[in-house]
Amino acid sequence: MSGRSGTGTRLMAGRNAVILLSGGLDSATVLAMARQQGFGVYAMSFAYGQRHAHELDCARRLALQPGVIHHSVVNIDLRGIGGSALTTTQEVPKDRNLDQEQAIPVTYVPARNTIFLSFALAWAEVLEVSDLFIGVNALDYSGYPDCRPEYLSAFERMANLATRRAVEGAPLTLHAPLLNLTKADIIRQGLVLGVDYGLTTSCYDPGPEGKPCGHCDACLLRARGFAQVGVPDPLMVRYGSVTA
Amino acid sequence: MSGRSGTGTRLMAGRNAVILLSGGLDSATVLAMARQQGFGVYAMSFAYGQRHAHELDCARRLALQPGVIHHSVVNIDLRGIGGSALTTTQEVPKDRNLDQEQAIPVTYVPARNTIFLSFALAWAEVLEVSDLFIGVNALDYSGYPDCRPEYLSAFERMANLATRRAVEGAPLTLHAPLLNLTKADIIRQGLVLGVDYGLTTSCYDPGPEGKPCGHCDACLLRARGFAQVGVPDPLMVRYGSVTA
Repeated sequence: MSGRSGTGTRLMAGRNAVILLSGGLDSATVLAMARQQGFGVYAMSFAYGQRHAHELDCARRLALQPGVIHHSVVNIDLRGIGGSALTTTQEVPKDRNLDQEQAIPVTYVPARNTIFLSFALAWAEVLEVSDLFIGVNALDYSGYPDCRPEYLSAFERMANLATRRAVEGAPLTLHAPLLNLTKADIIRQGLVLGVDYGLTTSCYDPGPEGKPCGHCDACLLRARGFAQVGVPDPLMVRYGSVTA
Repeated sequence: MSGRSGTGTRLMAGRNAVILLSGGLDSATVLAMARQQGFGVYAMSFAYGQRHAHELDCARRLALQPGVIHHSVVNIDLRGIGGSALTTTQEVPKDRNLDQEQAIPVTYVPARNTIFLSFALAWAEVLEVSDLFIGVNALDYSGYPDCRPEYLSAFERMANLATRRAVEGAPLTLHAPLLNLTKADIIRQGLVLGVDYGLTTSCYDPGPEGKPCGHCDACLLRARGFAQVGVPDPLMVRYGSVTA
């Protein structure tokens, strides 16, 4: 598993990668990092019954940029499985103290990253692609178990026993270039790479036209990140600041 | 990972398990083994764009038996990903010599078991179930990489890093009770447990009303298994023998 930052010097002309693109700040940054490393991009998003389906509009806009060869939006219904505030009518927690909270919050979606990575693994095999990027982060995050480095390493190991391509000598590398970055560091690197964060969304519980609630974990982490960088969030500029 | 046979003496009153139920001979046997071990069953099947969708009718009939608490049929479109004779118009190979063939055949579906197990993992977490059964077999099989014991062990390890339930101290056990059985042994055990193999299907390329082609790998393996046991296949009795 590669946790290295995407601002390195590797240039791989002609190589392509599959990227999980949620439409959020993190995956938009990962997309820019992969492009900077010279990868052509196959972007994959999921319509999984999420209450914040606005993120798919953002993913579609982000996928219009040069270097994205194809954008696939996969329909799967995780509402039928339930177990999360993001796929049920359960309330999204607001104004949590992120420095004190320890428990995994109700916005955790059971096995979501495993399901997403499994589809990406299948697509990578068919495309004959050996690089898979995911924008998970283990510092400024909500404590989800499937964002931790030990999980990602175990997924990569399993993936390399799962496919014909791996068995025949073309193993997959799972890249998580944001893994050890703070939200502020992610934003800094993204700004250097020209990411337009006004095209992204983070909110778990957006209002009409995707207006951020300003109070869920994702909004709070995003706001703190931009504050630490010391630049305005273009999304907040557009909607008017909604955080305290 | 538990590869032990389901004919053991463990009895776990009140425990439930998630079982991947394809409608085939193997998963029907696994269902009976889990029931014999005392598990209540949550059965999960997938409408994934397979050409042999007849297997879903079989799964639905199998799920009507006592002890099946709920049967979930998950819609996912693997045709959009492609890469297999089972999800495209590519021809299913016929009359292969299974004792000589080494290459992974075109009926392999990229990452299929990983995708199926990922959904089952999510469901198990929501149901608060710690046991997951899959009917893969590494002896009389088509050589798929995601049927091998090392793959299953790696999936189990990954799964136990992926979920809140595992992190909070309730790990998942992945049971593959058929793993080291021949097809004949599977049938023998199933017959002892009262499995009605007339309710199952195996063919990758069935005709109208699910009539087996008699020539694909799955038909050949099934026919050899019943021949070795020395009993007629009730499916063949119904349709009339179609194998040489």
